[in-house]
Amino acid sequence: MCGSDLWPYRGTDPVDEPRPMGHEYVGVVEEVGSDVTTVTPGQFVVGSFFASDNTCEICQAGYQSRCPRGESATPTGAQAEYARIPLADGTLVATPGMPADDLIPSLLAASDVLGTGWFAAVAAEARPGKTVAVVGDGAVGLLGVLAAKQLGAEKIVIFSRNESRQRLAQEFGATDVITERGDEGVARIKELSGGMGAHSVIEAVGTQESMMQAIRATRPGGHVGYVGVSHDVALPGEELFYSGVHLHGGPAPVRRFLPELIDLIWNRTIDSGKVFDLELPLDEAAEGYRAMDERRAIKTLLRP
Amino acid sequence: MCGSDLWPYRGTDPVDEPRPMGHEYVGVVEEVGSDVTTVTPGQFVVGSFFASDNTCEICQAGYQSRCPRGESATPTGAQAEYARIPLADGTLVATPGMPADDLIPSLLAASDVLGTGWFAAVAAEARPGKTVAVVGDGAVGLLGVLAAKQLGAEKIVIFSRNESRQRLAQEFGATDVITERGDEGVARIKELSGGMGAHSVIEAVGTQESMMQAIRATRPGGHVGYVGVSHDVALPGEELFYSGVHLHGGPAPVRRFLPELIDLIWNRTIDSGKVFDLELPLDEAAEGYRAMDERRAIKTLLRP
Repeated sequence: MCGSDLWPYRGTDPVDEPRPMGHEYVGVVEEVGSDVTTVTPGQFVVGSFFASDNTCEICQAGYQSRCPRGESATPTGAQAEYARIPLADGTLVATPGMPADDLIPSLLAASDVLGTGWFAAVAAEARPGKTVAVVGDGAVGLLGVLAAKQLGAEKIVIFSRNESRQRLAQEFGATDVITERGDEGVARIKELSGGMGAHSVIEAVGTQESMMQAIRATRPGGHVGYVGVSHDVALPGEELFYSGVHLHGGPAPVRRFLPELIDLIWNRTIDSGKVFDLELPLDEAAEGYRAMDERRAIKTLLRP
Repeated sequence: MCGSDLWPYRGTDPVDEPRPMGHEYVGVVEEVGSDVTTVTPGQFVVGSFFASDNTCEICQAGYQSRCPRGESATPTGAQAEYARIPLADGTLVATPGMPADDLIPSLLAASDVLGTGWFAAVAAEARPGKTVAVVGDGAVGLLGVLAAKQLGAEKIVIFSRNESRQRLAQEFGATDVITERGDEGVARIKELSGGMGAHSVIEAVGTQESMMQAIRATRPGGHVGYVGVSHDVALPGEELFYSGVHLHGGPAPVRRFLPELIDLIWNRTIDSGKVFDLELPLDEAAEGYRAMDERRAIKTLLRP
C-alpha cells in the first residue's frame, strides 16, 4: 500500500468509480505475452509502478516514468493474486534467483518507495561532504534517508515529530532530527549548516507547506529533489527565483535504479523492508489503509 | 541599460523615491580602498552586478550572486562618470590590458547580459548533441543563443517574431526560428525534436506565460535555465511535478563566468557587443530607455 493512495482514500483526490488499487508489487511470473523476450515464467520479478519500454530516448536518458509508450499502460491492480504488467521487458527486473522470504519486503519496497526515495536523493545530489535534509517522515522520506546514507552524505537531517519514525530514520542513517516545522524548522537546519541551509533537500510530502519548507531549507545553488505527489501547490516565482536552488522531481523513474537496488538488497547491504510495520492478508486491505491513514502504521504489506 | 530596468521604468515595480540606475559597467580603476589587494588603479575592469567576496563557501560553489557579504552591497549607480564598487577584489575582474575600443561593448555585455545568458545556458545544460530552445529575444535571450552555441549545442531554436532579433540570433548561432507562442510554440518545438521537446530551454522573460512556455517546451528529464526576473509568477505544482524537468535559475552568478568570458572576448571568439544597437551619451539616458521600452532598440550603451 502506497502513501499516495491516501489522497484518494481521504477524498482529496476525487473517486468517481471503483478503482483497482496497488502499484507496488513483486511476484513470480506465471505467464508472458508473445512479444516478451527477456522475462520468463518462474522468475521472481520486481516491477516499477510505471510501465516503460526502456529502449526509447526518454527511457535511455533515465526517465522511464515518462516513457511515451508507458503513458497509457500504467500498472495497477497489484493488490490481487495476479496482475498483468504491461511492457514486461522494460518494466520488470528479475532477481538473481528465488529470494529468501525475509528479503521480500525490501524487494517490494524497491518497486516504489525505495526507488522514489532514491530518486529524490539523486535529484537532490546527495553526495559525500553534503548536508542532506529530508522533509517528510513517511516511507519515502525514510528511504530517502537510507539513499542519502548509501550515496555518502555527511550529515542527514530528518524533520520528524514521531518517535518511532525518528528511530527508523536514525537506523537508516539520519545524524540529526529536527522537530520544528515551517520557518522554525528552516531556522534549525540553517543552524546545523553554518547559516547557509542544506546542500540537498528531499521533499516527500507534496503540500505547499512542505515544498516551501524544502526550498527555504536549501542553500543558494543547492538542490531540492521533490517526490511528494503535488497537491494544491503553487510555487511563488519571485521567491523561487531569488532562492537560487535547483528543483527536480516528479514521479520517480524507479526502473532506472532497480538493478542497483535489487543488488544492494540481495547482498543485504540495505534493509529497505523495515518501512513495513504492518503485514496483513489481502482481504484485510481496508484495515491496512485505516492504520496508515491514522498514522498507526508507516506502511502496510499485503500477502495474497 | 538593462532590460530589467524596464520593470521600474514601466511602473510594474513601484518607484517611490529617486534611485541611481546602472548595474552593468566596465571602466578604469581610479582609486581603491585600503582593504583591496588584487585590483590596482589604472586597470581596466569588468564587474558583476552583484558584489561578492568570491572566497566564502557560497561563492566557491559558484553562486557569487548570493554571497552573504554581497547581499547588502549591490553595485548600482553605474550610469555615471564614476561608481564605487563594493568588495572590489571579489567582484571585479581585470582585463589582460587596456582593451581596443571595439571590444568595450562586448566586455560591457559580460557584466550582466552575457553572463546571465551564459548562466542560463549552463543551468539548462546546453551541450553537444542537445536541442536548446530560447524563450525571449531580448539581449539575454540572444546571448543565451550565443552561449548555447559556444557550449556546443546541436540545434538552437529561438522564439521570436522580430526580424532584426531573429537575424542577430542567427548570427549568434540559432539554427531555427519559431514565431508561434504559447501552446502553438510548444507544438512547434516538439515537431523540431521528435515529439519530445527540447533537452534544454533558456527562459529570459520572467512572466507566467514565458515560464509555462519554457517548462512545456522541455522534455521529461530536460533542463530549464530561467533568468528572466520573475514577475507575478506562480508555478502550478502538479504540472511541474509531472513535467519531470529540472528547474534552475535566478540572478546569475556572473562573477563565476567572467574570467572565461573576458578571455573569449579578448580573443575575439565571441562578439557579444552586438546586442547594443544604440549608443548614447550619458545625458541622453532617457531616450535610451524610451527606445528599449518601445522595442526600437535591443539594448542601449551609455558613454560618459
